[in-house]
Amino acid sequence: MSFYIGLVHYPVYDKRGEIIVAAITNLDLHDLARLAKTYGARRLYVINPLREQQDLAKNICRHWVSGYGAHYNKDRKEAMSLISVVPTLESSMAEIKDSEGEIPTLIATDAGRDKGQKVNYDSAREIVASNKAVMILFGTAWGIANEVIRKADYLLEPIFGVSSYNHLSVRTAAAITLDRLFSEFIRP
Amino acid sequence: MSFYIGLVHYPVYDKRGEIIVAAITNLDLHDLARLAKTYGARRLYVINPLREQQDLAKNICRHWVSGYGAHYNKDRKEAMSLISVVPTLESSMAEIKDSEGEIPTLIATDAGRDKGQKVNYDSAREIVASNKAVMILFGTAWGIANEVIRKADYLLEPIFGVSSYNHLSVRTAAAITLDRLFSEFIRP
Repeated sequence: MSFYIGLVHYPVYDKRGEIIVAAITNLDLHDLARLAKTYGARRLYVINPLREQQDLAKNICRHWVSGYGAHYNKDRKEAMSLISVVPTLESSMAEIKDSEGEIPTLIATDAGRDKGQKVNYDSAREIVASNKAVMILFGTAWGIANEVIRKADYLLEPIFGVSSYNHLSVRTAAAITLDRLFSEFIRP
Repeated sequence: MSFYIGLVHYPVYDKRGEIIVAAITNLDLHDLARLAKTYGARRLYVINPLREQQDLAKNICRHWVSGYGAHYNKDRKEAMSLISVVPTLESSMAEIKDSEGEIPTLIATDAGRDKGQKVNYDSAREIVASNKAVMILFGTAWGIANEVIRKADYLLEPIFGVSSYNHLSVRTAAAITLDRLFSEFIRP
């Protein structure tokens, strides 16, 4: 099993449902890189088409991978080394195809209820446990645009806790999704 | 079952193992409040003894609960309304005792391996499913000081993914812990 994570900054929705490029958030990179390392992802693709935003993300990564941060915190270096900054989902999929020899299965995530057919976590665990490479997408801002969700092989069911409230940050939603899909922890 | 969350800023360790007061991080409040709402916590106690840090946290909450943010994002208002800013763990425990009529069971979390006897997630699910009130503590910086962990009724086992790397942020660790303890999702 080899899997990859994509953090999508474009195309995503804003509060009003308009397509935007979301700004890169420093803590998203740190939290998702640490999750990627914890759960064994091959790479974390930070997807943003804007050159200045890419440079910002690359500067953050450089600090922790080869700059002062690499000496300050070696655990963080290990995690941040997993980040690749790319302009588009297509470029990340092409890079994965190059290294895996096949186009990965694309799994999108979304908190919305009305986005069509969804795969539940039990089935998704079987999909990621197969031998095929998998790319799991998380959206920033108000979520991944439908045009991307339609391209995915699977759309994962939303996370619900104990109520209908499901407005989690991308950081905590990604944590729960990866733990549900990849951890060995078995609930009673 | 009624449970509470405590986000501990003191006493916690810094990188060198010295006891410090950690600074409040805006995104911690948002992410943990949204988690608290998602999983049904009664309150999220933000524990910090410094008056200026308390004021900062209260100002953030006020913005989202009764200020401009309350109109901008009603979902966030619901979550941020769960936050109480308190100076000490003891004051939060006293407040819970006042409303529940009993001192809550105190469960501490820690990423370290060598902190003594730990309760696993299966047992912890049974503990939180009982009728007694429960307070779950998460530490900022390099984790909750041992003097607090020793006072707890239980220390929860650390989160591991697929490797020995377990350096998660408090935001993502709290997400995984709450999902493991409270969600209805059952792994195969």
